[in-house]
Amino acid sequence: MHWEKVAILGAGLLGSSLALAMKRHRLAKNIVLWTRRSEIIAQLHSKQIGNSATTDIQDAVTGAQLVIFSTPIGVMPTLAKTCLPYLTPETLVTDVGSVKKTVVEALEKFFDSHALFVGSHPMAGSDKTGFEHASETLFDNAACFITPTKNTSSTAQQIITEFWTTLGCRIKILPPDHHDQLVAAISHLPHLVASLLINTVTSHHTTEALQWVGGGFRDGTRVALGSPAMWNEILSQNRDAVLKAIQDFRHHLNATELLLQQNQSLEKLLTEAAEARKQIMRK
Amino acid sequence: MHWEKVAILGAGLLGSSLALAMKRHRLAKNIVLWTRRSEIIAQLHSKQIGNSATTDIQDAVTGAQLVIFSTPIGVMPTLAKTCLPYLTPETLVTDVGSVKKTVVEALEKFFDSHALFVGSHPMAGSDKTGFEHASETLFDNAACFITPTKNTSSTAQQIITEFWTTLGCRIKILPPDHHDQLVAAISHLPHLVASLLINTVTSHHTTEALQWVGGGFRDGTRVALGSPAMWNEILSQNRDAVLKAIQDFRHHLNATELLLQQNQSLEKLLTEAAEARKQIMRK
Repeated sequence: MHWEKVAILGAGLLGSSLALAMKRHRLAKNIVLWTRRSEIIAQLHSKQIGNSATTDIQDAVTGAQLVIFSTPIGVMPTLAKTCLPYLTPETLVTDVGSVKKTVVEALEKFFDSHALFVGSHPMAGSDKTGFEHASETLFDNAACFITPTKNTSSTAQQIITEFWTTLGCRIKILPPDHHDQLVAAISHLPHLVASLLINTVTSHHTTEALQWVGGGFRDGTRVALGSPAMWNEILSQNRDAVLKAIQDFRHHLNATELLLQQNQSLEKLLTEAAEARKQIMRK
Repeated sequence: MHWEKVAILGAGLLGSSLALAMKRHRLAKNIVLWTRRSEIIAQLHSKQIGNSATTDIQDAVTGAQLVIFSTPIGVMPTLAKTCLPYLTPETLVTDVGSVKKTVVEALEKFFDSHALFVGSHPMAGSDKTGFEHASETLFDNAACFITPTKNTSSTAQQIITEFWTTLGCRIKILPPDHHDQLVAAISHLPHLVASLLINTVTSHHTTEALQWVGGGFRDGTRVALGSPAMWNEILSQNRDAVLKAIQDFRHHLNATELLLQQNQSLEKLLTEAAEARKQIMRK
């Protein structure tokens, strides 16, 4: 797998890390980063993130065999519309959005027969954002969801699967709506809960109380440092699945409360959690 | 501060790490570890954890100027009763229990005028347990609560404060019941929530789903690997404060659910959490 030209739209943590990882794995001759921020182009160049960077979408995507959307999910539809004239029916397009149903529906509608679109979601985010934290190893051993629909070209799906595999990802293929329900439970709800644990401390105790936390709280709430604007967008775009996950979680919380009120043991539920947690590999 | 003899009762992660940290800071000539497990005595000796180890409580505490209870909190009262005959009215006694109101009440009653007791709680636990994971740097920069009551000798409180400070802890002095409310919010509830996040995934999706989590979930649920028996004891001994923390947290969860249902922005609450989280130092 070796492309002549790949366009990465968005030069944040994921887009920039993708450029570095593709270079490391020699996946493309020419990697062009598109960013709306002209002020960072010189820095992308000096850090050798991609072969070139531009604010001109036509320059970025024209002639690219692969185009990867790495922007916040909210701007993807508009951006798709903008780059449409410069794609060919053979251009492969994917994205790295954390929500798939709304994104895939919107992008499939735009690309239709004008390009070959397959949705992706590498679970490689971090509380750190921006190209300053880009890493060529960000995708090593990360899970990557690929979310085909009935409209997806099987060849496109196969190539995109190979692409993420080459970058070091473990692949899970599932429909967009299943993806959204799963990540609501394993990513979106946990993010929200981390934020609410912090707000519970600061609103019922004092902000000073956070000085006294141990390693569990420190590690457990690190995700809450992530961009509030980006996470608000993710949670709102995945609203139905997140609401369902909140209900599921509250069911467990209420059952636990009842056990405690009745002075019954919590050891069984703690043991189930500890045993299941052992199955999560260290990265 | 230099003691002739210190007895540490319990050779788990905390007790063993205490022995190593005291040696590093040259705090005592003779550190004796008491353990009920005769089978680990040879290993404690070969790892040079303490100067000696014994299963005989009389041998351990007789002649000690400082006795530190480092066992699970449930066995502390019985153990206190057992070692009472071998203490003097000048013997300093402290403990490392995660719950203070029940423990301090029980231990104060036993020690009364027979020894000088002050409750402590260094926030230096981990999901790892046992002397195998002992570390001489476990207490470096950890928070340590000291929980005096109206019965506490001010001299004893001062010496115990100096003791933990010398080991590298940041000290917070507060009454046992305030302590229990605070740690319910910053430690006990977060532990429970981490376990329930895992159980929410495994019961509403599949256990296989845990293979696909990202770094946020992995770090955020690490605490749930901790000993279920120990955590059940902590949660049950701090029941009232944990129940209050669950209510406070659910209030935030329900308010967030309502915002999502009404399609309102969560950015404000996410921003509040992110800003507060920045105040937690890296260890």
